[in-house]
Amino acid sequence: MLIRETTNEDNLSLLARIRLGRLACARDAQPYVVPLHFAYQDNFLYSFSTVGQKIDWMRASPLVCVQMDEVVNDETWASLVIFGSYEELPDIPAFKIERELTYELLQRQANWWEPGYAKTIIRGAERPLEPVYFRIRIARITGHRSVAEV
Amino acid sequence: MLIRETTNEDNLSLLARIRLGRLACARDAQPYVVPLHFAYQDNFLYSFSTVGQKIDWMRASPLVCVQMDEVVNDETWASLVIFGSYEELPDIPAFKIERELTYELLQRQANWWEPGYAKTIIRGAERPLEPVYFRIRIARITGHRSVAEV
Repeated sequence: MLIRETTNEDNLSLLARIRLGRLACARDAQPYVVPLHFAYQDNFLYSFSTVGQKIDWMRASPLVCVQMDEVVNDETWASLVIFGSYEELPDIPAFKIERELTYELLQRQANWWEPGYAKTIIRGAERPLEPVYFRIRIARITGHRSVAEV
Repeated sequence: MLIRETTNEDNLSLLARIRLGRLACARDAQPYVVPLHFAYQDNFLYSFSTVGQKIDWMRASPLVCVQMDEVVNDETWASLVIFGSYEELPDIPAFKIERELTYELLQRQANWWEPGYAKTIIRGAERPLEPVYFRIRIARITGHRSVAEV
């Protein structure tokens, strides 16, 4: 197997297909990484969550990194790493269009509100379900893909 | 769907089965997340890479986070998040036992040295293949799993 960098065309094609990535944020020197369901449009990843550690940390420190991949098998795969920043889309008139876009993009996906909005029992108590819409502004994409050696 | 915290027994059972996770490190406030092939034993995740951004950043700032999951389908899944720290296992006599253990654990996996050690072309040039053995010392595990609602 040989590994090559992806082209811009590869990256846009992957972003249009992939719905699940891993989002890393950081507080002080401690990183934190969790699964992220998202929809891509025009240089942003749109997503939705309930308030919790991830949202708290990104509000305090908006630089993030999202990794996503498409694996056909051990020999055929592509992986993207996106550097970007967190932008919250609060429920106020100034963000009405962006919130509607987020909802419209995400609701095309089956069960898009799960697990972001599922009833969650933590240490015996239900987690409060306060919804947060947000997007990741893409600053830079790097990607690699496998190439069969001939 | 209902989401619950995993038990210690769930966590150890998942760690024994899962071979692929996502490793997040951070430099200043910027997180970075990449796929990680690993093998778990006795509170450590053992792995192998070539020198590059991930190794450079972990050498400078050893706090890391690793996320891994086992997804059967949308309704049946488990996800672990591990907080820990990077420990390099250099090629000197003091680390001989740990390096042999890393090799022994990883070589049980098919193609374990790929893509960590595959020939990689970056901006037209081959990446140098300087191998680095390391392990992540686990400080804390949190996990969640889906539970069918009855």
